[in-house]
Amino acid sequence: MFKNSLKSFLFSIAAISSCSLLSVNAEVLTVAEKQQIEKLKNTALNSDLSYQIVESLTTEVGHRMMGTEGDKRSIKWAVNKMKALGFDKVWTEDVTGPKWLRGEVKASIVKPYPHDVVAIALGGSVGTGEQGITAEVIHFKTLNDLKAAAKGSLTGKIAFVSYQMDRHIDGDGYGVAVGTRVRGASVAAQKGAVALIMRSVGTDNNRFAHTGMTRYKDGIEKIPAAALSNPDADLLVNQFKRGKPVSFYLKLTSSRFSTETVKSANVIGEITGSEFPKELVVIGAHLDSWDVGTGAIDDGLGIGMVLASAHHLAQLPKRPKRTLRVILFAGEELGLLGAKSYMKKHKDEINTHVLGAEWDFGLGKIYKMIPGVGASSLNVIRELAQILAPMGVALSPQNNGRADSDMGMLTDAGMPSINFAPDGASYFDYHHTENDTLDKVNSEALKQNTAVYTVFAYFATQAEIDFRK
Amino acid sequence: MFKNSLKSFLFSIAAISSCSLLSVNAEVLTVAEKQQIEKLKNTALNSDLSYQIVESLTTEVGHRMMGTEGDKRSIKWAVNKMKALGFDKVWTEDVTGPKWLRGEVKASIVKPYPHDVVAIALGGSVGTGEQGITAEVIHFKTLNDLKAAAKGSLTGKIAFVSYQMDRHIDGDGYGVAVGTRVRGASVAAQKGAVALIMRSVGTDNNRFAHTGMTRYKDGIEKIPAAALSNPDADLLVNQFKRGKPVSFYLKLTSSRFSTETVKSANVIGEITGSEFPKELVVIGAHLDSWDVGTGAIDDGLGIGMVLASAHHLAQLPKRPKRTLRVILFAGEELGLLGAKSYMKKHKDEINTHVLGAEWDFGLGKIYKMIPGVGASSLNVIRELAQILAPMGVALSPQNNGRADSDMGMLTDAGMPSINFAPDGASYFDYHHTENDTLDKVNSEALKQNTAVYTVFAYFATQAEIDFRK
Repeated sequence: MFKNSLKSFLFSIAAISSCSLLSVNAEVLTVAEKQQIEKLKNTALNSDLSYQIVESLTTEVGHRMMGTEGDKRSIKWAVNKMKALGFDKVWTEDVTGPKWLRGEVKASIVKPYPHDVVAIALGGSVGTGEQGITAEVIHFKTLNDLKAAAKGSLTGKIAFVSYQMDRHIDGDGYGVAVGTRVRGASVAAQKGAVALIMRSVGTDNNRFAHTGMTRYKDGIEKIPAAALSNPDADLLVNQFKRGKPVSFYLKLTSSRFSTETVKSANVIGEITGSEFPKELVVIGAHLDSWDVGTGAIDDGLGIGMVLASAHHLAQLPKRPKRTLRVILFAGEELGLLGAKSYMKKHKDEINTHVLGAEWDFGLGKIYKMIPGVGASSLNVIRELAQILAPMGVALSPQNNGRADSDMGMLTDAGMPSINFAPDGASYFDYHHTENDTLDKVNSEALKQNTAVYTVFAYFATQAEIDFRK
Repeated sequence: MFKNSLKSFLFSIAAISSCSLLSVNAEVLTVAEKQQIEKLKNTALNSDLSYQIVESLTTEVGHRMMGTEGDKRSIKWAVNKMKALGFDKVWTEDVTGPKWLRGEVKASIVKPYPHDVVAIALGGSVGTGEQGITAEVIHFKTLNDLKAAAKGSLTGKIAFVSYQMDRHIDGDGYGVAVGTRVRGASVAAQKGAVALIMRSVGTDNNRFAHTGMTRYKDGIEKIPAAALSNPDADLLVNQFKRGKPVSFYLKLTSSRFSTETVKSANVIGEITGSEFPKELVVIGAHLDSWDVGTGAIDDGLGIGMVLASAHHLAQLPKRPKRTLRVILFAGEELGLLGAKSYMKKHKDEINTHVLGAEWDFGLGKIYKMIPGVGASSLNVIRELAQILAPMGVALSPQNNGRADSDMGMLTDAGMPSINFAPDGASYFDYHHTENDTLDKVNSEALKQNTAVYTVFAYFATQAEIDFRK
């Protein structure tokens, strides 16, 4: 009965329904385990533990860019929280990275009509010096337009790219828009520009600028790079409509250090498996945030979800068969530093990581799961999908799922993964801004998403399946 | 036919439908005038002139607190704009007021968990001195709770009021919430407090603090007063849930000057009446804004609406019978300074002001008109209401309409008025914040509202009715 009603409302399940008899024949969970998983799901759906964890992190720590005092506090917080939540083992693994300080920003339109505007240094940007830079602005609608500018044509000028990110449920607009942030400064420098300013990579119309890493290409002069809030980018575009020269003042006191490094740590905790303790199911999130807001959605949500899921498993009368490892990665925002460090340290043990998932995107409910597993284990994934379907989670017909962010590196190294895709339509309204605060958390979605991760964690630790096959 | 369908969907018209025969007998507009008014309405509905005016003001001037450079620029802008729009007369009338400088703000939670927070000085607040104030915070949920505190119980403490404004279509939550902003500092000072911090008077959950005037009671020590953004007020409330003492650092470098004054001007323009030039229909808005955002909704919208309405009348082949006077008031935000000055200068001519309306609230479409006229002219108001009804404007059964803000003083002095009430549910998301920018303008609502003001302006200048009677 359940399967029939499922077929009628879930397109993606319907798309693979010709295989459903196979999954019936291959069920891996016993009746008792299925009852257990239903109980766990209900426990998670009725618990606000994940919200309370986000509340605790944002209230007691706040933002926590790698290398800052907040980062240090967050590591202590995470170790203590894991212990309090009943993890069997908790430890940290050192991570080091380059030192960068944001400093202060001051930005204004100088001509034709003076306005102070809201701007933020891109992560890793060099500074302008205390005196700042005043220069004529040349406007490009896209990064491609900037690329098409003649060499030397921007000598002494500030390049401005006004491309506006599109809103999509899966955040697809980000990939298109983020190129300017990542590569724009070096492209502009190649044309002779003295600075890059860009419309924030964000979907909101609030007067917050969105930060995020920029990368300088080797051998090209490093120029200061900043993002403007969407309303301020509009204002600058409207100045150009007057047909008069536009000039801009930018002061960034940010600093890059070529020799000094900063230290942080991945925080790792485990619920030890009762039968196969060396087989690891891994769920993760990143512990660091940008140095703005309180890092509630990026990535407090993920931290709340994976810690609460582990706690729910730890409350069972008996530990599941495999070990559940929870990894809170350091320095994700500064370039997956924690993930790189983890890969280096654990490169010979990746084959013990049987299945993994990370949360680092979205605000709404999970509506889709995209497996990335061996072809033979797809039947088992369908069994998991059937358990999750009543919560509105559809199984993607594709089998190319990659874990988010940090854990994507483990996927790339051969770890079977599942990507749980949430509604992310409003995520980039707040991402990397001062506005990433607790009130943005959708507590109902968080409950459901925690239930999905809890079910996943139990299923994967209990099912004796090699997801590589 | 029209009247019957009107009765079926407009409650307030229905409520007075027993009088509708009277209004049929008393129609004041000729057939030709009615055709003219329909043309004018369509002209306004199909024109983006009011939006272009707001775009011009926000792009070429920006924010314009009385006494600032922006204020001076806005006066020139307004004079030039009125001339360009075809006004027959344009002049300014000097307004002076007390000098206040915002200075800088720095605010942070010190204990139990340190966070920098987003705060803004209330208008008129004294400063803390360069060293700032660090003190324990005492939390009150409402202004009444603060009032109930024992005298001396806050000695050396910072009072914090966390009351959250409610959202209403008519902005009613503002009146309840604003008491803390206006009177809270003196109430707190009476209990011995060294500063007042309060949750912003706003309905948003963006990380912007809302400014607005505070008033010190004579004979009570003036203490610094600041508003926190809603997310930061939440954060502070959550600190108290830990049960530990909470302390706060506040630095405001704002200054009040007891002797120096600042100068500004009301900007006034007229479309001169062809038959009764001394009889004035007045529409207005305020030209000043707070020194944050670009003053697009407060009160750029009103400026766009009344200037465009006057322009549409100026484009007619013949001037309407009465004069249309447009008043852009100075220093509304600092305490109706322009309105007070206007009242002083024109106190003996208020009887020449036959009917008035001001826009200083709301973002959405006008859904109601509340007359404030003599009982005999209500029939004529019903005729106006019938013209506006197809745009969704209902006539209030009450006859106690007061013009918004500045022009409310003229209402109080006996000027017949109409209050056109718009959907203001989202107005206090942006009001008095850095987020009051052009993108917040609802351009479709602005077209309709301009059409309402245009129809009103023509009707009142053309109808030979004494609205006092």
